[in-house]
Amino acid sequence: MTHNLNIFENMESEVRSYVRSFPTVFTKAKGYKMWDEAGKEYIDFFSGAGALNYGHNDTVMQKKLVEYITSDGITHSLDMASSAKAEFLTKFNETILNPRDMDYKIMFPGPTGTNTVESALKLARKVTGRTDVISFTNGFHGMTIGSLSVTGNSMKRKGAGIPLQNVVTMPYDNYVDDQDSLDYLERFLDDSGSGVAIPAAMILETVQGEGGINAASFEWLQKVESICKRWGILLIIDDVQAGVGRTGTFFSFEPAGIKPDIICMSKSLSGYGLPFAITLIKPEHDKFAPGEHNGTFRGNNHAFITATSALSYWENEQFEKDIKVKSDIMMNFLEEMVEKYPELKGEARGRGFMVGIASDVDGLSNKIAAKAFELGLIMETSGPKDEVFKLFPPLTIDEDGLKQGLAILEESIKATVKEPVTN
Amino acid sequence: MTHNLNIFENMESEVRSYVRSFPTVFTKAKGYKMWDEAGKEYIDFFSGAGALNYGHNDTVMQKKLVEYITSDGITHSLDMASSAKAEFLTKFNETILNPRDMDYKIMFPGPTGTNTVESALKLARKVTGRTDVISFTNGFHGMTIGSLSVTGNSMKRKGAGIPLQNVVTMPYDNYVDDQDSLDYLERFLDDSGSGVAIPAAMILETVQGEGGINAASFEWLQKVESICKRWGILLIIDDVQAGVGRTGTFFSFEPAGIKPDIICMSKSLSGYGLPFAITLIKPEHDKFAPGEHNGTFRGNNHAFITATSALSYWENEQFEKDIKVKSDIMMNFLEEMVEKYPELKGEARGRGFMVGIASDVDGLSNKIAAKAFELGLIMETSGPKDEVFKLFPPLTIDEDGLKQGLAILEESIKATVKEPVTN
Amino acid sequence: MTHNLNIFENMESEVRSYVRSFPTVFTKAKGYKMWDEAGKEYIDFFSGAGALNYGHNDTVMQKKLVEYITSDGITHSLDMASSAKAEFLTKFNETILNPRDMDYKIMFPGPTGTNTVESALKLARKVTGRTDVISFTNGFHGMTIGSLSVTGNSMKRKGAGIPLQNVVTMPYDNYVDDQDSLDYLERFLDDSGSGVAIPAAMILETVQGEGGINAASFEWLQKVESICKRWGILLIIDDVQAGVGRTGTFFSFEPAGIKPDIICMSKSLSGYGLPFAITLIKPEHDKFAPGEHNGTFRGNNHAFITATSALSYWENEQFEKDIKVKSDIMMNFLEEMVEKYPELKGEARGRGFMVGIASDVDGLSNKIAAKAFELGLIMETSGPKDEVFKLFPPLTIDEDGLKQGLAILEESIKATVKEPVTN
Amino acid sequence: MTHNLNIFENMESEVRSYVRSFPTVFTKAKGYKMWDEAGKEYIDFFSGAGALNYGHNDTVMQKKLVEYITSDGITHSLDMASSAKAEFLTKFNETILNPRDMDYKIMFPGPTGTNTVESALKLARKVTGRTDVISFTNGFHGMTIGSLSVTGNSMKRKGAGIPLQNVVTMPYDNYVDDQDSLDYLERFLDDSGSGVAIPAAMILETVQGEGGINAASFEWLQKVESICKRWGILLIIDDVQAGVGRTGTFFSFEPAGIKPDIICMSKSLSGYGLPFAITLIKPEHDKFAPGEHNGTFRGNNHAFITATSALSYWENEQFEKDIKVKSDIMMNFLEEMVEKYPELKGEARGRGFMVGIASDVDGLSNKIAAKAFELGLIMETSGPKDEVFKLFPPLTIDEDGLKQGLAILEESIKATVKEPVTN
Repeated sequence: MTHNLNIFENMESEVRSYVRSFPTVFTKAKGYKMWDEAGKEYIDFFSGAGALNYGHNDTVMQKKLVEYITSDGITHSLDMASSAKAEFLTKFNETILNPRDMDYKIMFPGPTGTNTVESALKLARKVTGRTDVISFTNGFHGMTIGSLSVTGNSMKRKGAGIPLQNVVTMPYDNYVDDQDSLDYLERFLDDSGSGVAIPAAMILETVQGEGGINAASFEWLQKVESICKRWGILLIIDDVQAGVGRTGTFFSFEPAGIKPDIICMSKSLSGYGLPFAITLIKPEHDKFAPGEHNGTFRGNNHAFITATSALSYWENEQFEKDIKVKSDIMMNFLEEMVEKYPELKGEARGRGFMVGIASDVDGLSNKIAAKAFELGLIMETSGPKDEVFKLFPPLTIDEDGLKQGLAILEESIKATVKEPVTN
Repeated sequence: MTHNLNIFENMESEVRSYVRSFPTVFTKAKGYKMWDEAGKEYIDFFSGAGALNYGHNDTVMQKKLVEYITSDGITHSLDMASSAKAEFLTKFNETILNPRDMDYKIMFPGPTGTNTVESALKLARKVTGRTDVISFTNGFHGMTIGSLSVTGNSMKRKGAGIPLQNVVTMPYDNYVDDQDSLDYLERFLDDSGSGVAIPAAMILETVQGEGGINAASFEWLQKVESICKRWGILLIIDDVQAGVGRTGTFFSFEPAGIKPDIICMSKSLSGYGLPFAITLIKPEHDKFAPGEHNGTFRGNNHAFITATSALSYWENEQFEKDIKVKSDIMMNFLEEMVEKYPELKGEARGRGFMVGIASDVDGLSNKIAAKAFELGLIMETSGPKDEVFKLFPPLTIDEDGLKQGLAILEESIKATVKEPVTN
Repeated sequence: MTHNLNIFENMESEVRSYVRSFPTVFTKAKGYKMWDEAGKEYIDFFSGAGALNYGHNDTVMQKKLVEYITSDGITHSLDMASSAKAEFLTKFNETILNPRDMDYKIMFPGPTGTNTVESALKLARKVTGRTDVISFTNGFHGMTIGSLSVTGNSMKRKGAGIPLQNVVTMPYDNYVDDQDSLDYLERFLDDSGSGVAIPAAMILETVQGEGGINAASFEWLQKVESICKRWGILLIIDDVQAGVGRTGTFFSFEPAGIKPDIICMSKSLSGYGLPFAITLIKPEHDKFAPGEHNGTFRGNNHAFITATSALSYWENEQFEKDIKVKSDIMMNFLEEMVEKYPELKGEARGRGFMVGIASDVDGLSNKIAAKAFELGLIMETSGPKDEVFKLFPPLTIDEDGLKQGLAILEESIKATVKEPVTN
Repeated sequence: MTHNLNIFENMESEVRSYVRSFPTVFTKAKGYKMWDEAGKEYIDFFSGAGALNYGHNDTVMQKKLVEYITSDGITHSLDMASSAKAEFLTKFNETILNPRDMDYKIMFPGPTGTNTVESALKLARKVTGRTDVISFTNGFHGMTIGSLSVTGNSMKRKGAGIPLQNVVTMPYDNYVDDQDSLDYLERFLDDSGSGVAIPAAMILETVQGEGGINAASFEWLQKVESICKRWGILLIIDDVQAGVGRTGTFFSFEPAGIKPDIICMSKSLSGYGLPFAITLIKPEHDKFAPGEHNGTFRGNNHAFITATSALSYWENEQFEKDIKVKSDIMMNFLEEMVEKYPELKGEARGRGFMVGIASDVDGLSNKIAAKAFELGLIMETSGPKDEVFKLFPPLTIDEDGLKQGLAILEESIKATVKEPVTN
């Protein structure tokens, strides 16, 4: 049976969005490829907005998941103990925390990014007894009221229908030309007449995905950590999108050498695209009472199975090395594009597999992404004016697939910059 | 491999809760039964707090899910169109909406109860341009800041770490003896000097699960609907726990004959315990802009597959009739218990498969539930003082299983009321 | 020089209000009489909305004030020490606090009612560490954001332009027919699932002036006090309008025998209509740091002079007795009116010199007040729909003046109820 | 009768503050001199924190006020029309608004600075339909919750006991070395992902008094005005302290050539130290409904009388010229002090009669002010760490008085810098 898009137009709320950018009905996917009902094949440089870092339907995980299901393994268990959960905890500790000398308690806050962010904000306020949180320009942390409060996008904020409170936005790295954004932040904290109280926490992404592929420098991150320490502020890293290898290491902040107080993870954590999230908490901050934060789907055993399997990728150092090689190919390609097509007025941005080109030409990035879709490449835009087209292939893509995708992208750029731009 | 509970104590945050009430490691489940790693069998009168209304690992859904996975069906697709989603939309319309003469748009707000509640609150505020929402005493709607604002429990509210705003709590049905709670509500709305503004919405559960199995009368629900209409207030029914058959009909409000403006559904919607939620919106209120509310896991294709399959149960009228028969068995049993064990100081409460006994003896309900667990019956308590022990078997339980569970429960009551109570 | 009303229309903001109800230019006043520029004489049953309880330009105070001014007495002194302030403090203690066995610290929070209310709310929150305050339906406490939050009137609340927070409104005495409003309040406080947190304070007027001359019973006030004690909630009595003798005793709550934690006073406190306010605080709650609440006009020495003089009235017991006699005349008159003019659909309300008739006929009270003005009697309306016409003569009015005013009022009633009512 | 300070210690709340800095009981004052009960004479370089710009008990105003009182002129009239009010309106228009080509409606918001600020904030929110207001670091606008929200001082903010909302603080002129503070502001407004919404208003003082005598440059003020225009933001100038000649012109912003949307005035407006405030509103923003903001003391007729008289000073151009001459004397003196006493680590700041020295030595400014008091000069400190000693003599001081005061100040500086500093 094939379906047409009318079903979605007729039955689904106007809030639907990606179906508008990618107007076809998908049916199958494997690795870095997707197929629609008409049988058309697409290369996926979108990866579920970072939820499919290991590609679609990874064969090993798929096998383990099917075995688990057919053996009547527990599916849903709230936060009761299950064998699948025990194995995830054990493997996460062995593969991720221990080798990085990280001592953290694990909280299951509900299965989505916004669940982990909300749990982190609540905990930081409880631990410190303070109400304000400092977020950063163009941060994106989720759509529930707590997370939306620390999200920068004005359209999304207005969607709240109420004033969003208890938050102060500070400038992210490189926000104003030639001004060190942390000088500004420190001045506010240092001055008791500034109107900005010492906050419970700062929350930030090390590379801002939705905000336009803005990568903070490692020095900036280190200085943020030291400011937090100086003032007794909890540092929350939202690694929902940048984590799980997207920037080249399991945690995005590893190369900066910092140790956040709280870490938010979701998206690719299950490895298979299943809803799953955790909040990592330094033991000294593990102060929630039993059940003080809860949720029906905080234990998704299917996700435990695939997540445990996915962690095996990180047992082999070669995995990170391969990411690095492919990252370099992408960044070189992007820099080449910027130079070769000056009509782009482009700037290459990002790190690892979280890269893109910001174009100063209004509307151009969206046109390029639309053209790419037409040519069989799935890719989205981001940034406050959708000025950036993002490259988010699966980490597991092979070089052939990568080059094939980049070739389609160049074709899309070329075709688009030649058109007269009309908005 | 068997695991012990130390793993959870050492690695999981103090916030963990059900693992404390049910201290064993579960490994397998089918229908209304669960097994732990030691092979002990349990009867499940908990059903994942209402997320497993069709029992564990339903054989038909299991088969369809495995087929889908092995065929490389799309797993994760944000809100792109997929065949699995098209089929869910179509079947939901045919099986649920059309036969009930309900015209609603469907929103995928993220996969959990709190996601759908947050989307409903945001939408109501946007549509009306008002900020306040009326919630009801002992309501429970979720743990993210928007949903927590409309949740009554003081321990959970304090967990927010910030004052919760833009909400007015009104008394639920039968809140104060001999006083009609809606007289009170109407007086506040009618009086321009009351300090209570006409709100964007009222949000309520028709039977309060976490709040202590309080069932509103149909007359009360009808009057709430008419008050909402009179004042142009949107009526949001949170059917996350009471919906999907838990009270005997697909929507809990069907027997009251009301048509809410917005309906929140999750928990048992996937049929299989997978994270999944929808928000149903009357077409005239479908006013979100594209992407104004979004989320990574708003399209969980595994859940589409099982949810579509689960809807088949509702094609046969016998399903509702069977629920009714078994409901009556449970309620009769509970009333018998209240009479037979006056030490309980008990009151039977609820409707359908959402029933329990409220005991006036401090701490007694928790003791009964603990005893039941020991004897192989899984059951939880609720209410502001955990004064209610809840019976939440799967709807699909057979009469044998039901009676077996009730027998264990009676044994637990008997054993407990004989002990001297010490707190 | 005489002025016309155009000056006000042209130059004053649209927010002006009493100039619309009393459209003439006043120039002189003495005792209970006022004169406009045309020489027309008015009897004053308005008393500056309770700010002129001793009438206009009291001769003794006038003399002392002029002596003070001509001797170059300090006029403005923030909260420096001045002789005039020392004398006020001494006399207030001797005349008011000591004889009533009241031990309170005196705070000068700025010279208006809203200043004292804001200081009380801030202090209660600081002392208890809680954020919420319980206010009551139809309470009126001022127009700055803190005070406006606890004010019931919806038109005034909307004037804030922001959602008003940290407040829960509870029903005042007799709010819903046949329901004891404190049953609701206690139920909410007692139930940890009610969504209503234990507040920092309750704030209320013993007789609501702007809210429609609603007088709480002494039993109700006593029960409120005992609820506050039980829960460790601070009781704030806003005696700005009902205090300084308006209800027959210096503090309005004296006959109920309660001892509020914080008392707000202003309006008639200066005795002469000068801006002046104090906040009385039980010593154990006197926890502001020096300067934590301040304000330029918190020491108005002219007001100290007249306020000290005004306190002499309270040295003679005959003063309260005279008020009682005249109060009875007024209440008898009002009850007679209600009976004699059934067209009023009236109800006599209030206590002491704070009385009026609530009419069930839409718009009638405003018409009566307008007619009275025409006939030389100044009087205003109150209540959420302006349904009450208020009698607020000076306490010092003689019986002749009182009867003259009542005669005009009856004439106004008679003339108005005979007109066909058109809104 | 003489009083001692015990009365204040025993009876007044701990919140009292200036009585601690100036520990004596004042009794008389004239022009720039004050006397205490012991007959000691003081030179007043404090001027009631800017409320006595024309000195104490100005002889002309004194005479008019006494005449008015003795003639039984209306004292209190809420916002009824009175002859005294008509004359104030007329004279204010003729003397102040017309000659400056300013078209504004006049609102009487209650008699204090915080009343006018609250009215301005409410109006701006109502007019624009937006909730946020931008304030600036170290701004000071009052102690009621609305005004406190836009005040920077952290000790005062904590006094609120609740989180202060709907406000974003931006850096005042010269806040961070070598960074143009308006670059930040514009970047935040321009970027739809910044998390900072376009506000209803910006509120600022042109010279920050309490904040530490920070004077914004005229260019900065002009740029703020143009940013407000560009974004449709209302510009509110809080001229409560800097207005009425304190900086050399009637409005402090005159030399910058800007026309604020709303102007807040109080303090010296009555001319005599009486509580009085107005809000000036561009006619197109005059959108309050009648009575939407009100208050008992919004018409203080004594203040109308003295304010009208005070305006005569501004009829003669010589008045401004004299201020200029004396300002220059003060600034030259301060710069000389900085140079002559390097131990001060001082910086001369301010404009007009609103000047001072910021000392980098912790606690030094407070010591100098204390020494000056001992030597007969009244003077206070300001700034987040009380690091500035302020010179605020009356504008009407003669050169002799000024030099006498400066001589005492130098003596105080000299004596203090020689002491070993111990905190």
